[in-house]
Amino acid sequence: MLSREENDLLTRTGPGTPMGGLLRRYWIPALLSEQLPGPDCAPVRVKLMSEKLVAFRDSAGKVGLVDERCPHRNASMFFGRNEDDGLRCVYHGWKFDLTGRCVDMPSEPPESNFRNKVKITDYPCVERGGVVWTYMGPPELKPDVPEFEWTLVPGSHLFLTRHLQECNWFQALEGGFDISHLAFLHRGDTAFQKRGEDKDGVTILPSKYELLPTDFGCAAGTGRDVGDRTIWNASLFLMPFHKLISRVPAIAPVGGHAWVPVDDESCMIYSFEYQPERPLRDDELQFSKKWLYIHGETLPGSDRTVLNKDNDYLIDRQHQKTGNYTGIRGFGMQDCGIQESMGPISDRTREHLGSSDQQIIKLRQYMLGTLKNSQLGRPVPCLDGKAFRVRSGSFVVAKGSGFEDGLAACIRT
Amino acid sequence: MLSREENDLLTRTGPGTPMGGLLRRYWIPALLSEQLPGPDCAPVRVKLMSEKLVAFRDSAGKVGLVDERCPHRNASMFFGRNEDDGLRCVYHGWKFDLTGRCVDMPSEPPESNFRNKVKITDYPCVERGGVVWTYMGPPELKPDVPEFEWTLVPGSHLFLTRHLQECNWFQALEGGFDISHLAFLHRGDTAFQKRGEDKDGVTILPSKYELLPTDFGCAAGTGRDVGDRTIWNASLFLMPFHKLISRVPAIAPVGGHAWVPVDDESCMIYSFEYQPERPLRDDELQFSKKWLYIHGETLPGSDRTVLNKDNDYLIDRQHQKTGNYTGIRGFGMQDCGIQESMGPISDRTREHLGSSDQQIIKLRQYMLGTLKNSQLGRPVPCLDGKAFRVRSGSFVVAKGSGFEDGLAACIRT
Amino acid sequence: MLSREENDLLTRTGPGTPMGGLLRRYWIPALLSEQLPGPDCAPVRVKLMSEKLVAFRDSAGKVGLVDERCPHRNASMFFGRNEDDGLRCVYHGWKFDLTGRCVDMPSEPPESNFRNKVKITDYPCVERGGVVWTYMGPPELKPDVPEFEWTLVPGSHLFLTRHLQECNWFQALEGGFDISHLAFLHRGDTAFQKRGEDKDGVTILPSKYELLPTDFGCAAGTGRDVGDRTIWNASLFLMPFHKLISRVPAIAPVGGHAWVPVDDESCMIYSFEYQPERPLRDDELQFSKKWLYIHGETLPGSDRTVLNKDNDYLIDRQHQKTGNYTGIRGFGMQDCGIQESMGPISDRTREHLGSSDQQIIKLRQYMLGTLKNSQLGRPVPCLDGKAFRVRSGSFVVAKGSGFEDGLAACIRT
Repeated sequence: MLSREENDLLTRTGPGTPMGGLLRRYWIPALLSEQLPGPDCAPVRVKLMSEKLVAFRDSAGKVGLVDERCPHRNASMFFGRNEDDGLRCVYHGWKFDLTGRCVDMPSEPPESNFRNKVKITDYPCVERGGVVWTYMGPPELKPDVPEFEWTLVPGSHLFLTRHLQECNWFQALEGGFDISHLAFLHRGDTAFQKRGEDKDGVTILPSKYELLPTDFGCAAGTGRDVGDRTIWNASLFLMPFHKLISRVPAIAPVGGHAWVPVDDESCMIYSFEYQPERPLRDDELQFSKKWLYIHGETLPGSDRTVLNKDNDYLIDRQHQKTGNYTGIRGFGMQDCGIQESMGPISDRTREHLGSSDQQIIKLRQYMLGTLKNSQLGRPVPCLDGKAFRVRSGSFVVAKGSGFEDGLAACIRT
Repeated sequence: MLSREENDLLTRTGPGTPMGGLLRRYWIPALLSEQLPGPDCAPVRVKLMSEKLVAFRDSAGKVGLVDERCPHRNASMFFGRNEDDGLRCVYHGWKFDLTGRCVDMPSEPPESNFRNKVKITDYPCVERGGVVWTYMGPPELKPDVPEFEWTLVPGSHLFLTRHLQECNWFQALEGGFDISHLAFLHRGDTAFQKRGEDKDGVTILPSKYELLPTDFGCAAGTGRDVGDRTIWNASLFLMPFHKLISRVPAIAPVGGHAWVPVDDESCMIYSFEYQPERPLRDDELQFSKKWLYIHGETLPGSDRTVLNKDNDYLIDRQHQKTGNYTGIRGFGMQDCGIQESMGPISDRTREHLGSSDQQIIKLRQYMLGTLKNSQLGRPVPCLDGKAFRVRSGSFVVAKGSGFEDGLAACIRT
Repeated sequence: MLSREENDLLTRTGPGTPMGGLLRRYWIPALLSEQLPGPDCAPVRVKLMSEKLVAFRDSAGKVGLVDERCPHRNASMFFGRNEDDGLRCVYHGWKFDLTGRCVDMPSEPPESNFRNKVKITDYPCVERGGVVWTYMGPPELKPDVPEFEWTLVPGSHLFLTRHLQECNWFQALEGGFDISHLAFLHRGDTAFQKRGEDKDGVTILPSKYELLPTDFGCAAGTGRDVGDRTIWNASLFLMPFHKLISRVPAIAPVGGHAWVPVDDESCMIYSFEYQPERPLRDDELQFSKKWLYIHGETLPGSDRTVLNKDNDYLIDRQHQKTGNYTGIRGFGMQDCGIQESMGPISDRTREHLGSSDQQIIKLRQYMLGTLKNSQLGRPVPCLDGKAFRVRSGSFVVAKGSGFEDGLAACIRT
């Protein structure tokens, strides 16, 4: 349970908000590279943390991301002409390059110096892992690009999708670190068995929960004692909104998500699976494309999922009785459905949290603490790009040993 | 004409509002029994007086009505698993019984006592007349279930439908006690003739209006003198939002409505016809199912009417010239159309009321007076379930005798 | 760039707003005459400056325009019965004539005088040029009907359409006086060449801008020097929101628009072309109906355009590269698309205006100045109907002569 103020702090990310300020200190996914298929292709609308933007690829193939509004008179740059290393507003022909500079202003007399006084808001971009990443914070504080392993492997090693979820980003993120739901929401799902759980698709609830701060964010550990040993699963929270799902079995693809705020009532979920050292096999790809695991199937040409809140995720009540727990097909859509059902912004003042919610409580404390520190002027953590070179996993230690004892070796890449 | 404050008092029914508090002192229709076809069937979303709820039928066939939000973390109980005498939230497996008690909390350790500290808001339900009735007020003040005759006759004697109307509940209710519109809105309609009016479908305007407080609500009388006698029609207003339509001729089915607030801008109308002492005949049923009289035809699987405000109720302007007065088919849809056209909440500060609006004025006074009394701590009226054992009708008295002289005998069941 | 206050002043037109008060001093287009095809035809919903109204044609063929709400109890007069020189509310039969007088109130006793105490808000109407014009200001200040030439020529000389645009009226109006966009937004369009521009469809930017106040509004001049002469094009702004497009070549139809506020976030655009002295030729009509020039094609039975913001105006990105500048078909839709893209009400506090925006700056000053004068009680200008008997055009003067030197002769009809 949070206070109204804490809930607002965690969930609001628009310009001028404290959390918006914190998130803007990191490189974040803006769109898929494939949405900009080639030099001078059509511009694409992008909304990030309630800011309306337009992405384009210039004649050299580099990506620009600028304010949707032309600074002249607010016409949308989405309708712009993408030509010769710049995006030109079609209303009066003002043209801007990747850096937001006005490089042509044909509506003014040739002798005019006005174009040098005008700039469009721009955000720097890089492409990694099939994603265009952008940095929306103060230019002088721009950190290194984070070296997530999935963004560094060859394309053949990676399967990446994205879809829109109609709820606040933090609600979706919390779902990713909510261990105890695995034993219920996804119970009985055949996809679960495929992923190596016991034959009823039941996860045995862990008895130990840890959330250790690290130099990339937090390591989330769940442990259970088996005989004289303790088995730990390590999921990773990477600042500011990324997850690596505990890799079980150790030869399975590593999976994960990024939950990117679109506005305060919707987020874009980037979901990936990758093999660190080899291409994904056909059977691995085929399984992912059945949409039974973490990826969500989207409507053609859209980020909206086929199963969505307007069709109640095509819930099958008979299947809910005899098959999986929800009657909804696919892990990703089960998460999406239940998280959206909590409302656009869940009212955390009404919650009743138990001991199995420890990781969520700790994750909120970590984020609120980080926020408070940054508001006090203390350094924002996890800005070292190399710190993100980690991998999720699981390990076994002698009973009585703690999560931290085997963690470092487990997550090293 | 009302003041802004009075209009708000009459129309607002959400939690914490004065009228909401008054209405919650009565048993009210929540949904149709047939929406919950059998034990452990799929849960159903219900919205009453701006509260979002979920109804379910347990393994013994009893109906429960609980808050839509799981008290744990706000996930929707609509997606719940209805099993073994309880509704289980699929997010973390918390299970609640009909009384709101948490009967299983598998996400917590077995030794935990946490589940006994958690409850979901629940409202008691009973089923009568094909309707699930609920009581949303203070438990210690729960009255007897009202003994409406239509809820006590065998199912073969009753024809019941419901549909959603997109305006405030009181606006719809007022329409039910607005005598003078009968001579206009429904004029010339063939359904009217069928019901025994003169051949032009014209009702002669009454010259006398009465609204007498009773122990069930009010008796609304309209009278006209014929020779040395006065003919009185008695419609009944039964607290807090029910009506029995004046039964003319005396052998016709008794008809009526309940106008249940969904939120402040829409209401669910339950409409019924019944024969007190025999099954409805085929011709009576067939007539009702032509949707020409009080019942509204709904879209399959929906409470929305086929004729609705987005299609202008399929108004036929030619028919309006030569046939009925509105060009809209069916009494119910004529009422619906004109009432919705007044806006979601009619602005009663702009009205100009005449002498033919006496009953509406008196009805408002009755409701506002009852509200004021209840706010002053005086007893809320009409809580005796047996008081609702009345029937509408008409009667003849000697000219000069009043409405009250023949009323009691007429409405006795 | 304007202040927030100035932007509100220019754009808000509802009852009680300063601009709303100013606009209500003029006769304005309410609907097309053809929307009311004959005596006693079906009423039509009309929204003007945020007021919801209903238009009807009485038994004598005259047009009435009244408040949508019946003064009795707010039922919509749209559902009214149009009969015998009056519109009758179908709820209780109250009937109103063209002047808003209640001419029948059958729900009240015959001896009642109540109907003489009730009136429905009405606005006087006249029909000219296929348009119903109304006056919504103080009755005692009603001016002459403006004598726009296009409203006075025979119907065979005129081609008139209208469509809804989803942005503020002043945003659309500004677009009509924004000279410099012609060289960009419409560049390369084949329709442009057809209208007599050079073969690349490029307009040479003018070097001189003038906006001269006149007795009908303003004359907007753009000039460029060619050898020892100056060529001036004269577009006309006619109060409060009309335009005559500079007539080039001098034998082409005269075109123009009226931008009528529907509410603050949408406007109805009336677009016309006419030949002052002869019927439009078939080739002229056929060209207009290709929807390549100023007229917008609308969906059947609707004021919504076929190309609209929900389909991104069917922008053709390939055509944008190789054909016209926008990839959007038709001048009118190019204007519509770019103006709507600025948002429902463009935020003029964020603009960066250059020297080519002089006419827009002056037009704003003219309107804000007129508004200020009217608020100070000074006379509202341009109320003389005969002053509107002008025509747009172009003329040539000796280099060094000003716009005003040839203007009067050019625009005389």
